[in-house]
Amino acid sequence: MNIPFTKMHGCGNDYIYINCFDHTIENPEDLSRTISNRHFGIGGDGIVLICHSDVADAKMRMFNIDGSEGKMCGNAIRCVAKYLYDHNIACKETLEIDTLSGVKIIKLHTENGKMLSATVDIGEPMLDPAIIPTLIEEQNALINFPFQVDDEIFAITTVSMGNPHCVLFCDDIDSINLQHIGPKFEHHPMFPESVNTEFIQIESRNCIRMRVWERGSGETLACGTGACAAVVAAVLNGHCDKDTDVIVKLLGGELIIRYTDESVLMTGPAVQVFEGEIQWNNK
Amino acid sequence: MNIPFTKMHGCGNDYIYINCFDHTIENPEDLSRTISNRHFGIGGDGIVLICHSDVADAKMRMFNIDGSEGKMCGNAIRCVAKYLYDHNIACKETLEIDTLSGVKIIKLHTENGKMLSATVDIGEPMLDPAIIPTLIEEQNALINFPFQVDDEIFAITTVSMGNPHCVLFCDDIDSINLQHIGPKFEHHPMFPESVNTEFIQIESRNCIRMRVWERGSGETLACGTGACAAVVAAVLNGHCDKDTDVIVKLLGGELIIRYTDESVLMTGPAVQVFEGEIQWNNK
Repeated sequence: MNIPFTKMHGCGNDYIYINCFDHTIENPEDLSRTISNRHFGIGGDGIVLICHSDVADAKMRMFNIDGSEGKMCGNAIRCVAKYLYDHNIACKETLEIDTLSGVKIIKLHTENGKMLSATVDIGEPMLDPAIIPTLIEEQNALINFPFQVDDEIFAITTVSMGNPHCVLFCDDIDSINLQHIGPKFEHHPMFPESVNTEFIQIESRNCIRMRVWERGSGETLACGTGACAAVVAAVLNGHCDKDTDVIVKLLGGELIIRYTDESVLMTGPAVQVFEGEIQWNNK
Repeated sequence: MNIPFTKMHGCGNDYIYINCFDHTIENPEDLSRTISNRHFGIGGDGIVLICHSDVADAKMRMFNIDGSEGKMCGNAIRCVAKYLYDHNIACKETLEIDTLSGVKIIKLHTENGKMLSATVDIGEPMLDPAIIPTLIEEQNALINFPFQVDDEIFAITTVSMGNPHCVLFCDDIDSINLQHIGPKFEHHPMFPESVNTEFIQIESRNCIRMRVWERGSGETLACGTGACAAVVAAVLNGHCDKDTDVIVKLLGGELIIRYTDESVLMTGPAVQVFEGEIQWNNK
């Protein structure tokens, strides 16, 4: 069968989007493994199926390069919203999209019938060390907490946005040897489910720079929940303020994060790169 | 403007192919830089324009990721042949394709109206050290020549296939730390135009395995001229035979190389992955 697709990215976090309102993909795991390959396939961080939902405007299912199913991705859900809006499937300024992490509400910022960016309610951060999870024996949230890696002591702040994050503040993130230090956090025995590590440089109370080492992926161009965790940690450490937009500069682009009493709001772009069609022999 | 394109690869060496018989691309350098990006663009090792030729069935122009124009690529020219044949532009079993390295003759291996693989005459190898070029002061061809890199002595064989190659034979190419040793050859002062370095493991007189460190690109999945140089070097060192097909196993697939008195013939696959259309605002 020929599968039409749309390639989109949010801050360089790129997926292959497939409209599944009218047909079903039988083996999405196989399809993702095959077509996500950047030399032999279409290339992408995975595939996202845009499907019918009984409870929301659409349901998104995402599959990683290795075929595993992902729960939610802040960069991908904005692209799903753009697809629904730009293709006249759901022409509303506020959309509800069902994910494995529940129904998410997305506010669209549009111009001339196209969505340019969107704001997603990512939910509340969780700070309880047992929820992160970390084995560090501490009742309270780990904020500016001394943590030994090899012979060095780092001041870490841990935040769960549904996935575990470990945030560190530094004077100059460009000088960090992420290939060297990233894996030491990722595989540290104190993080039983591994951890995503964000290295943050404060530019001002409204602007921070970030590099991220994602568990299982290494350094990536952007991590939406990582940007949320970074701003939560920056507020907890007194670098930034609650209820205020903070620009997070990532390698792949910029996100605007606002940490409120109820949740964390992420605003960012969604870009369509091209449309195509691939032949797929479903086995 | 909307630019239709076809994504194809030969042994994982993937380019974005654009039919330019009916229209001209104004700034191919800019286009290549933009759309070759694997996260923000279509993704590929570059773009290949398939154009009209007065002297051959078609002319190919190729542009690398950095926008520079390439002369010739054995993996790309097979894909151009496949495009011409499969799209009924030139339905012959032998095609002539004009390149910046001259007109190349390609013999097609077809089935049910589609080209599966092709044999390209890559031309004669050149062994004169001055032509490679290398600054090593030696009149004769460098075959199994002792060459110092840091504190280690390597036995090298140098071959030019229009571009410079340095071939080394090893017992186990999987155990080589290419990230470490590759750049030491690439930037060695004895190679004033830098060099592509091939690490070869002999499996039999008809089969060799190869890993390659390409100048400017690092380790790649396949290098067509590198596979040719490797077989020439293997013959010169007595590991393989002239006028005999030798399978070269690369990370991205297999090529069959035959070194004759007149030239080097390369046979390999060409695969169409998908077709698409991208919007391009020519500046």
